Amino acid sequence: METIKLADDLEFSRVVLGFWRLLDWGMDRNELLRFVEKCMDLGITTFDHADIYGNYTVESLFGEAMLQKPSLREKMEIVTKCDIVYASEMVRVKYYDTSEEYIVSQVERSLRELRTDYIDLLLLHRPDPLMNPEEVNRAFVKLKKDGKVRHFGVSNYKPQDYRMLEVYLEVPLVTNQVEVSPLQLENFENGTINLCMEKKIHPMIWSPLAGGRIFSGDSEKEQRVKKALEVVRDDIGADSIAQVVFAWLYSHPAGMIPITGSGILDYVSEPISALKYRLTREQWFMIWTASIGHKVP
Amino acid sequence: METIKLADDLEFSRVVLGFWRLLDWGMDRNELLRFVEKCMDLGITTFDHADIYGNYTVESLFGEAMLQKPSLREKMEIVTKCDIVYASEMVRVKYYDTSEEYIVSQVERSLRELRTDYIDLLLLHRPDPLMNPEEVNRAFVKLKKDGKVRHFGVSNYKPQDYRMLEVYLEVPLVTNQVEVSPLQLENFENGTINLCMEKKIHPMIWSPLAGGRIFSGDSEKEQRVKKALEVVRDDIGADSIAQVVFAWLYSHPAGMIPITGSGILDYVSEPISALKYRLTREQWFMIWTASIGHKVP
Amino acid sequence: METIKLADDLEFSRVVLGFWRLLDWGMDRNELLRFVEKCMDLGITTFDHADIYGNYTVESLFGEAMLQKPSLREKMEIVTKCDIVYASEMVRVKYYDTSEEYIVSQVERSLRELRTDYIDLLLLHRPDPLMNPEEVNRAFVKLKKDGKVRHFGVSNYKPQDYRMLEVYLEVPLVTNQVEVSPLQLENFENGTINLCMEKKIHPMIWSPLAGGRIFSGDSEKEQRVKKALEVVRDDIGADSIAQVVFAWLYSHPAGMIPITGSGILDYVSEPISALKYRLTREQWFMIWTASIGHKVP
Repeated sequence: METIKLADDLEFSRVVLGFWRLLDWGMDRNELLRFVEKCMDLGITTFDHADIYGNYTVESLFGEAMLQKPSLREKMEIVTKCDIVYASEMVRVKYYDTSEEYIVSQVERSLRELRTDYIDLLLLHRPDPLMNPEEVNRAFVKLKKDGKVRHFGVSNYKPQDYRMLEVYLEVPLVTNQVEVSPLQLENFENGTINLCMEKKIHPMIWSPLAGGRIFSGDSEKEQRVKKALEVVRDDIGADSIAQVVFAWLYSHPAGMIPITGSGILDYVSEPISALKYRLTREQWFMIWTASIGHKVP
Repeated sequence: METIKLADDLEFSRVVLGFWRLLDWGMDRNELLRFVEKCMDLGITTFDHADIYGNYTVESLFGEAMLQKPSLREKMEIVTKCDIVYASEMVRVKYYDTSEEYIVSQVERSLRELRTDYIDLLLLHRPDPLMNPEEVNRAFVKLKKDGKVRHFGVSNYKPQDYRMLEVYLEVPLVTNQVEVSPLQLENFENGTINLCMEKKIHPMIWSPLAGGRIFSGDSEKEQRVKKALEVVRDDIGADSIAQVVFAWLYSHPAGMIPITGSGILDYVSEPISALKYRLTREQWFMIWTASIGHKVP
Repeated sequence: METIKLADDLEFSRVVLGFWRLLDWGMDRNELLRFVEKCMDLGITTFDHADIYGNYTVESLFGEAMLQKPSLREKMEIVTKCDIVYASEMVRVKYYDTSEEYIVSQVERSLRELRTDYIDLLLLHRPDPLMNPEEVNRAFVKLKKDGKVRHFGVSNYKPQDYRMLEVYLEVPLVTNQVEVSPLQLENFENGTINLCMEKKIHPMIWSPLAGGRIFSGDSEKEQRVKKALEVVRDDIGADSIAQVVFAWLYSHPAGMIPITGSGILDYVSEPISALKYRLTREQWFMIWTASIGHKVP
């Protein structure tokens, strides 16, 4: 599979496997290892985590699976995230923590859970209105110096968040992981995709299939978009509208990196097989127009 | 008439004649030539086109008219635009095309239609969510080098679009052509006028009379604005509320360049005769306040 | 009381006394002098004015009070603002005036009314859609050179306003005075607080108690916020929810400088006594969450 360069010494597979819903896949460590190996056979080398996935359990399950075959580690890139703190018996409200201490300790926790010595890419999970960017910088510099994290980025950042943080950092931000799908154009409208282009970073894309609503949604908008995807599917001879969605993302010049969150190999294959497609501008805008509900101005 | 400098070697008449609705004027090429000459006698030297005006026919009609008197060309500045592709029998949906190939080929088409060797100012007509700014830069550099286009700008760009594109360009952007009128303050509110000030470019203004709604609109807002314009008209001794609207634009420090889209010489004269007026701040805000519907905070 | 540095040679008390509502306090010049002295005994040295407060009368009353004890002047910092022009018998509509002439003449007026030779910090009161930033720069440079104003800032500026003005100024902007309270998060959402962080300026905060609605509001949102404030009050052992609000502001890394607008010494003491508190992130987000009405994403 083609790869995409996020930094001089950081290359991702063009499709990333995400573990947000790993618990739903119902795999034990053996099954998970086999699944990861099959994904790697398909060319996927980049795996997306967050400390909180599966209510703080996913990293550990993945780490246990990998423990059975440590040689895989150097063939893969691991992404994880921190800053969200879930409400719990001990925590009265869900909040964000971007303090130096918390970032460092969560990374150390992730390293333990994942059974690895280093994270390839650490993302701040959500913009934090209480963030002290000097603390973030100190945490990043320390983690980099200690070899615990190789590269840094953000997730769900709007331009205002990004421009502010960047001023304080001694390390570059290499991505912004954001939601984009034919049903979710908000990050086009609010300037976030433009910002990624301006900063020349490749956005990672979560929920490219809108959590399945691409297939099953029955609102007017969802029906319009599905129909447009079907027309383009027939145009290009694709097997599924999922492939069309991925082709729609690949056709954008930002170098979008979709995250697939499926535990079914057939579904994981779709963004990979879609790599051979590029949409014409007319096709791309047929999908865009179906989403916004009127022709472009 | 006074002129306004957009670049060291690009000077526009302070009022621009726009050909968006040329077909509605019902002029043949002889009548159009005479009308253009009369406008030039009034001091208008800048003429605003787009490839798509009149469903791709206006440039050609203008070019045929000019063919009768080629000596006019060097006394005028021609603006044209590209990137919108209309839906048609062959095109299933209206879309934007900012590919290098399309920009270059549309300019070459405009040159042929307009019967001229060069465009003074080429604008990207609409921000394109699928734009590859490296391609735009290559197209601009090539067109400049080949002498086909002297200067470049954009139209209907919001700050996020402008900041992004600018990063990639080797040529400066000299204007942003946007809609402003006492009934349309959106480009004040969304930061676009501020951006023009920040970048020290003069915005060209389309629909300064809100497509005639300044005169005929009967919504509450339109009635309020009309009344305010009438009060100011009487204040300054103007002949019409159209003159007040243009004076309102001229009073802004951005150096706004209104486009008049009329084929009737009396109407074309209004933005010209209005050049002698400048509103007081009180008068300017009476119109602003009428538009927003409440006093300023 | 701790102080906070806005520039190398400009230090404010961490709590500022504002005179917006001085007329409501019903003090004569003697009472006002005594009240100011008591505030200074508590450590407040920074006093916030605007030309328009009390319909253009507050500066004068303050000046008369200070006249009785001129030695206080060098122990205090005076902030004032201009650019709003109220409607009146002579003025048909409220408007903004940021012309060079008006800024200079309003400062000279403020100096006369306040019976002082210099303003420590002059703010533009509101972003002015008709602002000529070159004129603002000329006014600021002149006022600085003449020793009439030591430092400059803005008030109620959004990022788009700030970025534009800054490009034209030869003097730095040292603050943006904006509204923030647990009931008013708009300046977080629109990027203004982020901008203050990006520009490394400390925002001054007006209406930190939302004009008393923190205590008395009975909308659902106001009730939710009040309840959260009460929980945190009990957590930290504060005396009042007002103290919690101030602690919430102090806990933010921007170095927020609250303005208290009360003429009652007990109330003025609350932001001062609150200086000893810092909220945990959990507590801070309990208040944030109560305001937005749902848990953070």
